[in-house]
Amino acid sequence: MKIGIVGSGVVGQVVGSRLVELGHEVVLGTRDPAKLDEKKRGADSLRGWVAGAGSRARVGTFSAAAAHGEIVVNATHGQSSLAALRSAGETNLAGKILIDIANELDASKGMPPLAIARDAPGGSLGERIQAAFSNVKVVKALNTMNANVMVDPQALAGGDHTAFICGNDQGAKATVRRLLESLGWRDVVDLGDITAARGMELLLPIWLRLWGKLGSIPFNFKIAR
Amino acid sequence: MKIGIVGSGVVGQVVGSRLVELGHEVVLGTRDPAKLDEKKRGADSLRGWVAGAGSRARVGTFSAAAAHGEIVVNATHGQSSLAALRSAGETNLAGKILIDIANELDASKGMPPLAIARDAPGGSLGERIQAAFSNVKVVKALNTMNANVMVDPQALAGGDHTAFICGNDQGAKATVRRLLESLGWRDVVDLGDITAARGMELLLPIWLRLWGKLGSIPFNFKIAR
Repeated sequence: MKIGIVGSGVVGQVVGSRLVELGHEVVLGTRDPAKLDEKKRGADSLRGWVAGAGSRARVGTFSAAAAHGEIVVNATHGQSSLAALRSAGETNLAGKILIDIANELDASKGMPPLAIARDAPGGSLGERIQAAFSNVKVVKALNTMNANVMVDPQALAGGDHTAFICGNDQGAKATVRRLLESLGWRDVVDLGDITAARGMELLLPIWLRLWGKLGSIPFNFKIAR
Repeated sequence: MKIGIVGSGVVGQVVGSRLVELGHEVVLGTRDPAKLDEKKRGADSLRGWVAGAGSRARVGTFSAAAAHGEIVVNATHGQSSLAALRSAGETNLAGKILIDIANELDASKGMPPLAIARDAPGGSLGERIQAAFSNVKVVKALNTMNANVMVDPQALAGGDHTAFICGNDQGAKATVRRLLESLGWRDVVDLGDITAARGMELLLPIWLRLWGKLGSIPFNFKIAR
């Protein structure tokens, strides 16, 4: 499948490499594709990423990534997601599935950063993206764990933990569920329409506390039931 | 141990009964102890509760419950917690451990109710209670699961799921941890100071979605790691 990723930081790179590994053709979209050798925080340079990811991987503009993808992934920082997606282009995104894995965090007051999401109508990034791009099928997913867990859930606790999805389009959610299952997810819980993105994004405050406490070990939420 | 519970709805009753069963002397505090026969939503009348809970159980005012307890539990609705605790009396609470299990929810816009907590300084009920009662040792706990799971975690998934605590006083948290362990909790995660109450209270939006989806089956968060 052709997949475009908007955002070329560590999350975009890790997800992109794994999707290539699974046989997909990936264009990793970055703000300025000329900066191939710039070191990314916690990640490879884009030249290094392409070299490592292999022949089905390319780097392009946000717009090239969106035009390429049958599915598009929003892997930008939440604070710049709307601007990045506008730059990716409404017509390039029209009618497509957009998997929103971003979180809107405010690090201006120190660490841990504060989640901007609120439990109110339009209070999540997922809802705001859906409202801004009404003919895109937004599915919120994978925003509740770190990138290594996203792409290799089986490496943590034998895969016995939970991925959440939500969105307004049933067909889009079915496609995203299959994609998650192909990554190794066994417990994918559909929370309903895109307003459930609030609950998913509001896992970040406790996630960040746990991250501060548990350090670099992989962890994730599981819904015991 | 002498335990006072402020709030006599279903949560206060279920927690109170279980604490009596464990050998504690419990005063269940209610707004108007004269209304012994009023039916409570989803719970017993207070006369029925006392009859069922046994000889170490009594009903009294908020103030009587707070005066009685070496440990006091806030089991009111979050929206009325501060008023109820003021009515319980600052001097009755002074120097004591207050286990805050409440959540502040707004049901005025329909179901599911909206969580009022925000990820900002003072954004949680736990922080606001600590700020209003500076000489009380507030420990946030047990606000992230339903009452039956609170008091009998072993009945769900063999007890393999997580209870969170946070608060500013290490000794108070150690006492609350032991109390939780006596209820059957095996995985009690200390998230740090009372500001972590934001993360705990902000689990409610996704909890309410899961509740809507899973129905009446017991469930809880587990931190897989």
